Amino acid sequence: MKRVAIIGASGYTGAELVRLVYSHPHLELGPLIGNSKAGRPVGEVLPNLMGRVGGEIQAFDADQVAADCELAFCALPHGASAGVVSELRDRGRIVLDLSADFRLTSREVYAQWYGEHQAPERFGEAAYGLVEWNRESLRNADLIAVPGCYPTSAVLALAPILEAGMIEAEGIVVDAKSGVSGAGRKPGAHAHFSEVSEGFRAYKAAGQHRHTPEIEQSLSLISGADVRVLFTPHLLPMTRGILSTCYARLKNDATAEEMTAVARAKYQNSPSVIVLDAGAHPSTQWVRRSNHAMVAYHDDPWTGRAIAFGAIDNLLKGAAGQAIQCANIRLGFEENAGIDALAAWP
Amino acid sequence: MKRVAIIGASGYTGAELVRLVYSHPHLELGPLIGNSKAGRPVGEVLPNLMGRVGGEIQAFDADQVAADCELAFCALPHGASAGVVSELRDRGRIVLDLSADFRLTSREVYAQWYGEHQAPERFGEAAYGLVEWNRESLRNADLIAVPGCYPTSAVLALAPILEAGMIEAEGIVVDAKSGVSGAGRKPGAHAHFSEVSEGFRAYKAAGQHRHTPEIEQSLSLISGADVRVLFTPHLLPMTRGILSTCYARLKNDATAEEMTAVARAKYQNSPSVIVLDAGAHPSTQWVRRSNHAMVAYHDDPWTGRAIAFGAIDNLLKGAAGQAIQCANIRLGFEENAGIDALAAWP
Amino acid sequence: MKRVAIIGASGYTGAELVRLVYSHPHLELGPLIGNSKAGRPVGEVLPNLMGRVGGEIQAFDADQVAADCELAFCALPHGASAGVVSELRDRGRIVLDLSADFRLTSREVYAQWYGEHQAPERFGEAAYGLVEWNRESLRNADLIAVPGCYPTSAVLALAPILEAGMIEAEGIVVDAKSGVSGAGRKPGAHAHFSEVSEGFRAYKAAGQHRHTPEIEQSLSLISGADVRVLFTPHLLPMTRGILSTCYARLKNDATAEEMTAVARAKYQNSPSVIVLDAGAHPSTQWVRRSNHAMVAYHDDPWTGRAIAFGAIDNLLKGAAGQAIQCANIRLGFEENAGIDALAAWP
Amino acid sequence: MKRVAIIGASGYTGAELVRLVYSHPHLELGPLIGNSKAGRPVGEVLPNLMGRVGGEIQAFDADQVAADCELAFCALPHGASAGVVSELRDRGRIVLDLSADFRLTSREVYAQWYGEHQAPERFGEAAYGLVEWNRESLRNADLIAVPGCYPTSAVLALAPILEAGMIEAEGIVVDAKSGVSGAGRKPGAHAHFSEVSEGFRAYKAAGQHRHTPEIEQSLSLISGADVRVLFTPHLLPMTRGILSTCYARLKNDATAEEMTAVARAKYQNSPSVIVLDAGAHPSTQWVRRSNHAMVAYHDDPWTGRAIAFGAIDNLLKGAAGQAIQCANIRLGFEENAGIDALAAWP
Repeated sequence: MKRVAIIGASGYTGAELVRLVYSHPHLELGPLIGNSKAGRPVGEVLPNLMGRVGGEIQAFDADQVAADCELAFCALPHGASAGVVSELRDRGRIVLDLSADFRLTSREVYAQWYGEHQAPERFGEAAYGLVEWNRESLRNADLIAVPGCYPTSAVLALAPILEAGMIEAEGIVVDAKSGVSGAGRKPGAHAHFSEVSEGFRAYKAAGQHRHTPEIEQSLSLISGADVRVLFTPHLLPMTRGILSTCYARLKNDATAEEMTAVARAKYQNSPSVIVLDAGAHPSTQWVRRSNHAMVAYHDDPWTGRAIAFGAIDNLLKGAAGQAIQCANIRLGFEENAGIDALAAWP
Repeated sequence: MKRVAIIGASGYTGAELVRLVYSHPHLELGPLIGNSKAGRPVGEVLPNLMGRVGGEIQAFDADQVAADCELAFCALPHGASAGVVSELRDRGRIVLDLSADFRLTSREVYAQWYGEHQAPERFGEAAYGLVEWNRESLRNADLIAVPGCYPTSAVLALAPILEAGMIEAEGIVVDAKSGVSGAGRKPGAHAHFSEVSEGFRAYKAAGQHRHTPEIEQSLSLISGADVRVLFTPHLLPMTRGILSTCYARLKNDATAEEMTAVARAKYQNSPSVIVLDAGAHPSTQWVRRSNHAMVAYHDDPWTGRAIAFGAIDNLLKGAAGQAIQCANIRLGFEENAGIDALAAWP
Repeated sequence: MKRVAIIGASGYTGAELVRLVYSHPHLELGPLIGNSKAGRPVGEVLPNLMGRVGGEIQAFDADQVAADCELAFCALPHGASAGVVSELRDRGRIVLDLSADFRLTSREVYAQWYGEHQAPERFGEAAYGLVEWNRESLRNADLIAVPGCYPTSAVLALAPILEAGMIEAEGIVVDAKSGVSGAGRKPGAHAHFSEVSEGFRAYKAAGQHRHTPEIEQSLSLISGADVRVLFTPHLLPMTRGILSTCYARLKNDATAEEMTAVARAKYQNSPSVIVLDAGAHPSTQWVRRSNHAMVAYHDDPWTGRAIAFGAIDNLLKGAAGQAIQCANIRLGFEENAGIDALAAWP
Repeated sequence: MKRVAIIGASGYTGAELVRLVYSHPHLELGPLIGNSKAGRPVGEVLPNLMGRVGGEIQAFDADQVAADCELAFCALPHGASAGVVSELRDRGRIVLDLSADFRLTSREVYAQWYGEHQAPERFGEAAYGLVEWNRESLRNADLIAVPGCYPTSAVLALAPILEAGMIEAEGIVVDAKSGVSGAGRKPGAHAHFSEVSEGFRAYKAAGQHRHTPEIEQSLSLISGADVRVLFTPHLLPMTRGILSTCYARLKNDATAEEMTAVARAKYQNSPSVIVLDAGAHPSTQWVRRSNHAMVAYHDDPWTGRAIAFGAIDNLLKGAAGQAIQCANIRLGFEENAGIDALAAWP
């Protein structure tokens, strides 16, 4: 058993990491760290652990974490993460960072979207943890940037058909819809029950959302082109799940069946991706509380467009589950150890 | 007071018609007709009327309706509607048909999407009830086809900027999301609580939904071009509301502010349309249970695209409310008589 | 038209007051007052008013309000309300207070539950605005304490059968369930979407909730006994609605039919109360966004108990709607002027 | 690995059984049986299994099941279950029946609530699978009646304090609230999204619900008295979870702390029951998708009453999870093998 630290344990992604490690066959829970809640009983902060996981939330101390654990998951907000990651890397620990701090490869793009980087000397050190497209580079990576939730849902759906030349790189639209848990645990009007329930709206439309460059970076790398994406996130009146509906111009009259075949070949050894039959409509409900991504393809000859759907649980394949998947690969475990549970439906 | 019949009163659209007529200053409730529930007390069929509206649901009898009422709202499914409409028109009554039977102008397109028409001799007789774009032709129309919910949300948003030449007619994508009430009152797996709640998916993607030709017809008429639209409906885990997120290529570097100004000029005398500030994100919650449509515009110079949002309550501006609006115009009342209530928020 | 001020307009109850006054046949909107949002455009603070109600939220100034309006609705939190109410009463204005500050008749009980009163010289001045049980005293009252949401739902159901001697005064249990809007607009963990959605729990069980003494006061007054109530509020994963399930020991083998007949006689001239048939199960959905209360009665001879259900919309009959009802009576209008809309269902 | 059959696999309880067996360390999936869906691909019937569990739903054949499996879970409706159970018992197989057919011990009570029994010769053969109160009798039972969801939630909360003489046996009220999944997978108005969402009501109040005698049977057995319970179920606008709020008269001024201590002693070796601190308010969200029951106690000296809360996931501890728990005991595995996952929160 490898002992792991979870930093930012009091947030929703942290809570999922705790739950997954608790049942993992090869990992065991080390310190649960959360500065703002330090000193409070674990079960009071994470109510699903009440009566099951004792002890207290702890304050971060890099030396203690490094002495106690070989690996740490860092689920802090961007900006706050880079420094903590750097301290743990300085002490030789493997770090899986769930923030955006190490996902981008261009310093300029990072600065434009996030401002000054808090550990510039480590910029560019991380392997990007979209397992299905980057598995090999993760085997020896000591710093892994776990992808964002929206990019995971969109890139898993688009990448196979873009790589295969079945869609144009120009003009891609990602119309994405996320559950409210993606907005985190901090209360505010944006996540206040009465103002979210029974309502639906977009936010940060027209390329204002920070996941835009992350999607573009992945698609550009895969296609070799300089891909620009129009990305529109929306907030769903539900807690978990992302569905990305991705539009692109078809090339060479590719059909839904052909796109499905390409994706199935690509993902045949990827236990977390399920390619549905051509013309299917995946529901976020079918992957909820699992590490599965479901993708599906449609063609519309009338308008010459492809539609690619990508559905995930934003806290699992979109965050904590994917982090465990990365850790499994890095530590030499079976890729889906501890994350192979079926979605609980309904 | 004009006495009106409501045919199909036991469905959700029928229920809203009853509610609106009940409070309308110039209309009064005539027979509530619903064949499958005929003979049952009104309050048992429509529980919000319990203790307020007495009597029974009645079976349809064209002569009785014609003798009793000058005008009828017909909220039956397509196919079932045309015959009833025709019987009432034969007797000289004004009919507002909320089905799809009289919305399309091409017999070929109707046949392709809906099959054989049940009253072919009246095909083409109706005025199309998208008030804001067709107000004048409604003043003397004895048969009005009330638009579909999705077309209302999309066309109100797209039409002003398409008419003004600010977007390309080619390549328009309408990514639409609807509450479950749009699926009607008949139980089925598609609307079963446990399989809809906390989940999200598309349905009839890639141009399979029957509202596609209705949207195309309106946009073609407005633009003078032969518009093809990629329309993707999705089902939201909530009861009411539609948000259409519409994508199109910008022409002449039109800005969100310019599109907003054009739409405001277009809708300045339209009490049911509210044009939000450039860059706003309308929520379905802000129009819920009102006859308002909220539209808003964004530009994305990075990809050269416009985004137009249209938000409505699918049962009101998308159905019953718009039908009352049409009736008001036909009968010479103030356009928003009985439908000027503010949305109840939250 | 009587011009009215709404103090605390930026909260949910305030928003409903604005909406109801906007459509009221005899009232017109005066200043919308909300200190923390003063200076912001109305449509920005209350998004359902966007494009419909202009102007800004204003800071409170007692002289200005008194000069402008004959009557004010005060929808502030308890404690904050008493002072404002007192200033307006000093200037001779009619005040409808929606807080708890003037509901209780015992200074000791007030102090025990709420602490020091902020306008002790006016304690006891108010008429209690449970219209159906106190209509006459409201006709000349210049200060009306609008009842709490839970007490309204429970007392309307229990009072007729308690007054008629059909249930024991001892041992009454009120198991109440409320939508989240009852918790107000201020964000916090208690109303954070992800922690409320798809979950259900009680809060302040075992007589810890401040509505306990208000229920007891009303039932004691009606029964002549010193009634103690076990009141347990729960939070429903939905925005609007309260259902109170009330248990009591049957006296004299009263049947559901007899209890129903007594309640119907009591409420026959009360347009806001609908007494369902014996053995019915009212849903909060059937009264949502209306000023209706639905009550229904059951008997259980096996255990010798009565069950009385009371269902309301907590923001309407439980707050803003009941306030308008009180104002109508005070001003000599028809009791349900402006609040006679049917519930919008579904 | 023990191979098990799941009969009634296409319902919600069946789906959970499949999911739990799929990940169970000592059980493996045998045939998935569902007569009405026989011949359809598993992943089409249970969408969370798409791409993970192949094969087809099968028709029931007692000989085949008996040849293939040592143990069968039977998740059929009452009435339909008894015959199937009997056929498998005739062939010597261990059967865990999740219907009500074998829960009651009195033939008269069964007949009164359910009508004629379909396997009268086996009436009384089953051990009752409320593990925490009947563990020993399950070790050798070949027919186990898995308890109902409501009884599980109420009895786990009430039984310790009733057994300890801390509450009166007379006058117990169970006010229970359940998620919609408890109503099963068959569509109908009672579970139609638009009529359930954002609404709340009771059903079968005043002792009309069939779980009443099951609760009474357990409490009578534990207390030695002839307990009558007033049981009122309500339908929550959410998919999973039951909270039972149980009221009883306190004896000997028992305090919440004393009741908590008694329950903790009782459940100290029961991994599925978590006794919260005195005065806590368990949420169904904290046990959702786990096999945990959370119970908590309150005293109210003002009215002389105790409140006992019991929260479970109705499909897990209320059905499929408890069935696995029973099977674990019967087969000699660790009691919580395969069902020790933490609740996924939020």
